[in-house]
Amino acid sequence: MTHHLVLLRHGRSEWNDKNLFTGWYDCSLNDEGRAEARQAAPLMAAAGLLPTVVHTSLLDRAIETAQITLRELNRSWIDVRRSWRLNERHYGNLTGKNKTEIKNQYGDEQLMKWRRGYNTPPPPITPENQFNPNNSPAYADLPPELLPASECLADVMARMLPYWNGIISDDLAAGHTVLIVAHGNSLRALVKHLDNISDDDIAELNLGTGIPFYYELNDNMTPVKDLHPLQRALDPDAAAQAAAAVAAQA
Amino acid sequence: MTHHLVLLRHGRSEWNDKNLFTGWYDCSLNDEGRAEARQAAPLMAAAGLLPTVVHTSLLDRAIETAQITLRELNRSWIDVRRSWRLNERHYGNLTGKNKTEIKNQYGDEQLMKWRRGYNTPPPPITPENQFNPNNSPAYADLPPELLPASECLADVMARMLPYWNGIISDDLAAGHTVLIVAHGNSLRALVKHLDNISDDDIAELNLGTGIPFYYELNDNMTPVKDLHPLQRALDPDAAAQAAAAVAAQA
Repeated sequence: MTHHLVLLRHGRSEWNDKNLFTGWYDCSLNDEGRAEARQAAPLMAAAGLLPTVVHTSLLDRAIETAQITLRELNRSWIDVRRSWRLNERHYGNLTGKNKTEIKNQYGDEQLMKWRRGYNTPPPPITPENQFNPNNSPAYADLPPELLPASECLADVMARMLPYWNGIISDDLAAGHTVLIVAHGNSLRALVKHLDNISDDDIAELNLGTGIPFYYELNDNMTPVKDLHPLQRALDPDAAAQAAAAVAAQA
Repeated sequence: MTHHLVLLRHGRSEWNDKNLFTGWYDCSLNDEGRAEARQAAPLMAAAGLLPTVVHTSLLDRAIETAQITLRELNRSWIDVRRSWRLNERHYGNLTGKNKTEIKNQYGDEQLMKWRRGYNTPPPPITPENQFNPNNSPAYADLPPELLPASECLADVMARMLPYWNGIISDDLAAGHTVLIVAHGNSLRALVKHLDNISDDDIAELNLGTGIPFYYELNDNMTPVKDLHPLQRALDPDAAAQAAAAVAAQA
């Protein structure tokens, strides 16, 4: 038996427009991001990928993306599960800071380490940071030792994997077609795990927004086909273009 | 320990505009209905009623209402559960028919029996009815003997109560503040049960759309205070007005 998994990264949000580090800050999609969510639906329908359960982070931009995509598919009624373990990477005290200002203050090299280094977390969030997301009631029941103050991608991997292994894999094993709607870094962590990508190579990988990525998995929850993640896009041209655009920025 | 329950009826949908019997047909909210969903949020916030879990039917107009209300409350992240047992009453073969045409064809008395009689289901849906909702993939896993062909309010009560007793009550007992977003008739059935309203009196009760109704319940899941349901509205004036408007129609 093979299992069907679709990954979808949310699109542009209000803080993209403002060029701010977002992470766990709970900003909304903007209209462009909503349009990206709509465009994902026909790609999934054309591929015959009709989710029966959706998993999201606790952040509204992922949740709204899932709601829009599923409404376009006439599948608002499917089961919904959410977890902080699918949240975007916690940007620590960079949260709410302007990316250009941080670049000018700390330099290109330090910025790239924070943005792309697998093992380099940004400085921890401080209580004085007015955009501190940790006081949200969404995390009130989370044991304090689990609530991050800042995360590198390795940290995201460590908190995402128990949810993949314990919850999402169970849904797949039960025969569900699973849609995960999450973020650039929580999805990169999952893709790194699934496609066995090295700590160095994952720095180069960018998953385009609003493009569904399809994994056919065997009973061990490993991919049936050995492919580059970008080849798994339901719109490979758009995925390649999006990846090239990010590479050109850097 | 007391438990906190909020009921919310979705607002106007596309088929209200067309004056058609809707029932299980899965039409969308219209913009007026979306505005009703937004107005529910500040009433709940002002009362300090912040849901930690939401239950909806499988119908998009209830689901979207819940999504809009929770987004306004900055609580998109709460747990979500859905069940066909919270669906609107199944209108049988009246589904998709124009209400005025049915009135002209069958007369006022028969129409009132179908609309308000506790024990009078409309004629069963036929496969020829182009708006037959029973083939939706939402019900594909439902045992065929549970899928109704038509329902009176007594039928709605019979299929709603197991979900109230088995699932929603468990959430309340676990300390959740529960929001149920559903429909005129599934909520009337629940209110009939909670407030112990007679088969005759329930015919007269109309719950306004977009108005939260608050139940404080004891450990037996019965109301702490003996009130008329309309007195439980977070906006009692709006609820009384809405009820009077329906009474004037009839």
